[in-house]
Amino acid sequence: MKILIKNCNLISMAEKREKYEEGIDILINNDRIEKVDKNINIKDYDKLINADGKIVMPGLINTHAHVPMSIFRDTLDGYGLQEWLNEKIWPMEDNLNEEDIYYASLLSYLEMIKSGTTCFNDQYFMTDAIIRAATEVGIRAHCTRTLMDINGGMEERLNELEGLINKHSNNDMVTINVGIHSLYTCTKECVERAVELAKKYNLYVHMHFAENSQELEDIKKIHNTNTPIDLLEKYFKDVHLVLAHCVKVKQEEMNKIKGLDLNVAHCPVSNLKLGCGVAKIKDFIENEINVSLGTDGQGSGNNLDMFEVMSYTALLQKGINENAKLLPAYEVIKMATRNGAKSLKMQSKIGSIEEGKKADLIIINLESEKTQPINDIFSNIVYNTRGNNVETTIINGNIVMENGKINIENEKEIYKKCNSIINRLA
Amino acid sequence: MKILIKNCNLISMAEKREKYEEGIDILINNDRIEKVDKNINIKDYDKLINADGKIVMPGLINTHAHVPMSIFRDTLDGYGLQEWLNEKIWPMEDNLNEEDIYYASLLSYLEMIKSGTTCFNDQYFMTDAIIRAATEVGIRAHCTRTLMDINGGMEERLNELEGLINKHSNNDMVTINVGIHSLYTCTKECVERAVELAKKYNLYVHMHFAENSQELEDIKKIHNTNTPIDLLEKYFKDVHLVLAHCVKVKQEEMNKIKGLDLNVAHCPVSNLKLGCGVAKIKDFIENEINVSLGTDGQGSGNNLDMFEVMSYTALLQKGINENAKLLPAYEVIKMATRNGAKSLKMQSKIGSIEEGKKADLIIINLESEKTQPINDIFSNIVYNTRGNNVETTIINGNIVMENGKINIENEKEIYKKCNSIINRLA
Repeated sequence: MKILIKNCNLISMAEKREKYEEGIDILINNDRIEKVDKNINIKDYDKLINADGKIVMPGLINTHAHVPMSIFRDTLDGYGLQEWLNEKIWPMEDNLNEEDIYYASLLSYLEMIKSGTTCFNDQYFMTDAIIRAATEVGIRAHCTRTLMDINGGMEERLNELEGLINKHSNNDMVTINVGIHSLYTCTKECVERAVELAKKYNLYVHMHFAENSQELEDIKKIHNTNTPIDLLEKYFKDVHLVLAHCVKVKQEEMNKIKGLDLNVAHCPVSNLKLGCGVAKIKDFIENEINVSLGTDGQGSGNNLDMFEVMSYTALLQKGINENAKLLPAYEVIKMATRNGAKSLKMQSKIGSIEEGKKADLIIINLESEKTQPINDIFSNIVYNTRGNNVETTIINGNIVMENGKINIENEKEIYKKCNSIINRLA
Repeated sequence: MKILIKNCNLISMAEKREKYEEGIDILINNDRIEKVDKNINIKDYDKLINADGKIVMPGLINTHAHVPMSIFRDTLDGYGLQEWLNEKIWPMEDNLNEEDIYYASLLSYLEMIKSGTTCFNDQYFMTDAIIRAATEVGIRAHCTRTLMDINGGMEERLNELEGLINKHSNNDMVTINVGIHSLYTCTKECVERAVELAKKYNLYVHMHFAENSQELEDIKKIHNTNTPIDLLEKYFKDVHLVLAHCVKVKQEEMNKIKGLDLNVAHCPVSNLKLGCGVAKIKDFIENEINVSLGTDGQGSGNNLDMFEVMSYTALLQKGINENAKLLPAYEVIKMATRNGAKSLKMQSKIGSIEEGKKADLIIINLESEKTQPINDIFSNIVYNTRGNNVETTIINGNIVMENGKINIENEKEIYKKCNSIINRLA
């Protein structure tokens, strides 16, 4: 299938191109971007998209999510993190079945595709159902079977994870990673076995780290250390590491981690809502640590709109550091695209619009009351564009949403189903 | 004109009603809410609105805006506050004409009405054009002629303001207030004359205060004091005061202002973007100081979506204070409605849905991928609902937007016009 996109305004995020170009055509051939140029005049396309005056940019990459947690949206008010997990979430999670996971995941994919996210990095369980839903809607999935063994279960979870790794080793749309819940819920042995698995299959490790102060105290006890930050070098020296949150990593600790292959998945909305604080993104960047963005689950992260996450990211660093010049808009877009691809070891395939890369891209319409007039296009994307400005979403060369119309039948049935799940569990 | 709204889910924000009620009818008679009850069975209505399964709540009140600044959206990236004003904004403002102000205001009203704001508190100049546009679209306007005399012009601005006060004294939809730009741009004499005017006509004073540290330093010099906070009691002891920002009011200064008739218009997005910081809303509330919400102008505040402002307000206090339990969602909705009405001395007329009050209300559709499932309705409104969930906006008994269709012809012409203004000025 050949798709020709005509006359768009391009934010390619490619290092070798201008940051912003007008009047560009893009030719997609099957799953790949074949050509990006002015005036591509071919006749044998299967589909023509007129993008006159519209923005085309890479699909957004959400590097920390728990997609089935869509059903736990708005359950947090009045709770602290530990109470919320103990009293609300974990008891409900114990009663989830595969069908619940499937529908809850579908709801999240609706959100993602409608708001321009084309790839996500997940951490949950009953992973088959998550992948089944992802495959049906055509979204690029990075999944795992989360490891957590503080109350046992290490062997069976490691086995389940290795099974997933083998099952999907040739799946172009699904990548399995080694998900370690956290150092406060995993024993030393479990962490070491997980790292072995990551090395054996050349996969990255995806883990929560330093989300709040309580977590660090718990790590100290379980791993018998006074300096949890030192465990990163101790356990993860030779693996690619995606760490969600890192709110409580201090400025003076940056030198302890800057030599590692460490990527921070920054989830600003969730960190605020759970009362954790604001991660020192400015300092990570100054220490050349790769920062990508994530939503976290909807229970804490509200929604999966990565445009909102971009806005929160930029505004918080400016506000907290009392410096309006920090984090120029273009850098924030990079976090949501190229840096996300780097986090997920996918930089040769996604994260920018370049010839030879996968065709994961979105078309944005800025003709709306919140996005006009246009004074600076990058600021407009970060501060004023929202998910609902995304008109068309293309993943792996497939049009999964066109002019707001998505390939998922009966959205309202999914809402109903998710309401009935939560009513049953509550 | 009688409008009957049938079978809504009501968040009335009325003190005397339940916080949330299902299956409620609302009868609007001309500009007033005549009845709020189950099963209102009248036949002589002019318009029936079926609100089955939809939320009805009071229109949102934006207590700090600069509506013509819509055209300066996205001009801030890379600038600090003072540079931005000196190098970008003020030179452009010098070249604005009445027609520019009119169209720039229309764009803001489009944003407001589409996102459920029914009343705003403005501070700008060329006020006739702002009011003309407001009157045409039917939005409730609180306007002023901003006073600022550090470079002269006191008498003519005071005269202009008094002219506006007299002109609109019987205008049900337009209220003039006494807008003092700030204590760093106004002399003692100007402030005193402004307060006299406020007392003479029983109006409130609307002023920027303690937005950032530089401002406080400038106030110290101009008003010859070491404690700018003390000026509030000195100048404004007997007037109703709406203070935008108050970011730099310290916890230990609360006791100096809690006895005043002082209302804080909190603008969290703008405060972050300008690198000012986060106002201590938790402390204002603990000291029983009324806090309402505002967007500020779009140059700093991104957009005029008060749902986003609610979300930022709640999340920031939880995050900064590292306490997820702070600011329950219902309290935040109160800030955007009832507290806003109190700020603007309008609590007997607007801010809640009650019999006898003005019919300023909105109908919200929560059948969207970001707002489902519904676990807690107030959290849903604060954290997940956005302006684009607002379907219908009624102001003073007039339907100014119905099912997303607004009474403003040719929105795209307004976008074009605003782009051409900014191109001319830049």
